Amino acid sequence: MASNCVIATKNFYRHQAELKMDSLERESSFSLPNSTPSSTLLLALSLPSITNYSNLIAPVSPRISHLKITKMATNITWHAGLTREERNKYNGQQGLTLWLTGLSASGKSTIAIALEQHLLHNGVTSYRLDGDNIRFGLNKDLGFTEADRNENIRRIGEVAKLFADNSTVTITSFISPYIADRASSRKIHEDAGIPFIEVHVDVPLDVAEARDPKGLYKKAREGIIKDFTGVSASAPYEAPVNPEIKIENDKVTVEEAVQIIVNYLTEKGLVTLKPSA
Amino acid sequence: MASNCVIATKNFYRHQAELKMDSLERESSFSLPNSTPSSTLLLALSLPSITNYSNLIAPVSPRISHLKITKMATNITWHAGLTREERNKYNGQQGLTLWLTGLSASGKSTIAIALEQHLLHNGVTSYRLDGDNIRFGLNKDLGFTEADRNENIRRIGEVAKLFADNSTVTITSFISPYIADRASSRKIHEDAGIPFIEVHVDVPLDVAEARDPKGLYKKAREGIIKDFTGVSASAPYEAPVNPEIKIENDKVTVEEAVQIIVNYLTEKGLVTLKPSA
Repeated sequence: MASNCVIATKNFYRHQAELKMDSLERESSFSLPNSTPSSTLLLALSLPSITNYSNLIAPVSPRISHLKITKMATNITWHAGLTREERNKYNGQQGLTLWLTGLSASGKSTIAIALEQHLLHNGVTSYRLDGDNIRFGLNKDLGFTEADRNENIRRIGEVAKLFADNSTVTITSFISPYIADRASSRKIHEDAGIPFIEVHVDVPLDVAEARDPKGLYKKAREGIIKDFTGVSASAPYEAPVNPEIKIENDKVTVEEAVQIIVNYLTEKGLVTLKPSA
Repeated sequence: MASNCVIATKNFYRHQAELKMDSLERESSFSLPNSTPSSTLLLALSLPSITNYSNLIAPVSPRISHLKITKMATNITWHAGLTREERNKYNGQQGLTLWLTGLSASGKSTIAIALEQHLLHNGVTSYRLDGDNIRFGLNKDLGFTEADRNENIRRIGEVAKLFADNSTVTITSFISPYIADRASSRKIHEDAGIPFIEVHVDVPLDVAEARDPKGLYKKAREGIIKDFTGVSASAPYEAPVNPEIKIENDKVTVEEAVQIIVNYLTEKGLVTLKPSA
């Protein structure tokens, strides 16, 4: 017959996996809860009447006939030096970085938002790094000097590489106006053996300026914003010479732009969409 | 009868999805390859004999009787403001950060490596941030002054938050000796509504010093390394006062430590293991 009892045990960690009650006709085992890390565990159990015990410092009920506490049996296996191939196998996909570059108001972020969701909807883990989650977090210590802009892009390249190393289709969406900075980000990826795909989201300057959703071009023309990419002589936009993908974003819809990128990825065998049934 | 032909089309993006050949008994459609982003697409196809066409600038073969190029049909849907809940639903798990803290040689990284693999083996995406992938990448510009140590931990907290936002069980493994720095990382997560679980990997200093796998304690005692956590007066280790999990890592095996953490996560409903059959 089971009876309630309270036991306390020292050396909690060693004991947490199994109690074997040898006095039972067939051996029972169960796990101790371990949600309270502590060197002393108080445990309320409903146990058969057994009285022998080991490692118990305060058996409130003496009616424990035999309590054998054994070392936890785990099924945990691991090795040093997990490879990216193993990680990708477990995650069911490989990571890469799509590096969107283009003028302010070229439509980078809108494409990034739609692309991220289209991939997620089709079973592909994807994550977007953009001003919203970088500028006010990781890079909130940086301003807009050229040195700070370089450091901004350097960190984004490093973080994108880590995300891609985590089997994620990583989409960065920043003006990233300098060829040298983009080349550095590419090198970080190539040195790690991770695909880096430069996507030039291209619109003529006059189109971007006509859109001007945040009124930034107007302020730049009025001299209120200094060093505005594409407007100020001090802040040129250095277009990619040979990007993997070029989107003429004054000629396509957002959905078409996404399709162009997804087609590229699937044709290269970098991404496999897994639409839910 | 099919015949080979080469067509060229302007305004490539608008055309890339479907060609409908109305002259066929039943309508056929197929996608154009778009692996070469270009405003002019050269396309070699095996097509039935059809001669009418639109939007074609250079039909090499005139044997195209009718070629109707329609706007690409996409199944792409998206909206602004993807929530974390949606992301987690698509990714099949929620993210969180396990913040391992403890002395040098306390065993943090070994636990992190084993934990990451155990989760991956059981269908849970997990990623480890540690010295190997942070110190020589994102934080390679930082030294070991107190200001640089603070900035080191600040960036790690921000990146961990992004990884956790990407539905990843994120494991950070750094000494992170200061209570204030760890509290800042916790706040970054809590402000974002992401679970932050502090794991104190605790060993007595003399145990860590006896292990000393890299000979760092010896060098610190000899004064060769300055500001060594736990040894130098200038570099105290501020132990967590009330960590979510405390592991007495001189009393458990690596596998037991992993089991303790996994049990915590599963009991809290934060992680669901999905062992493969």
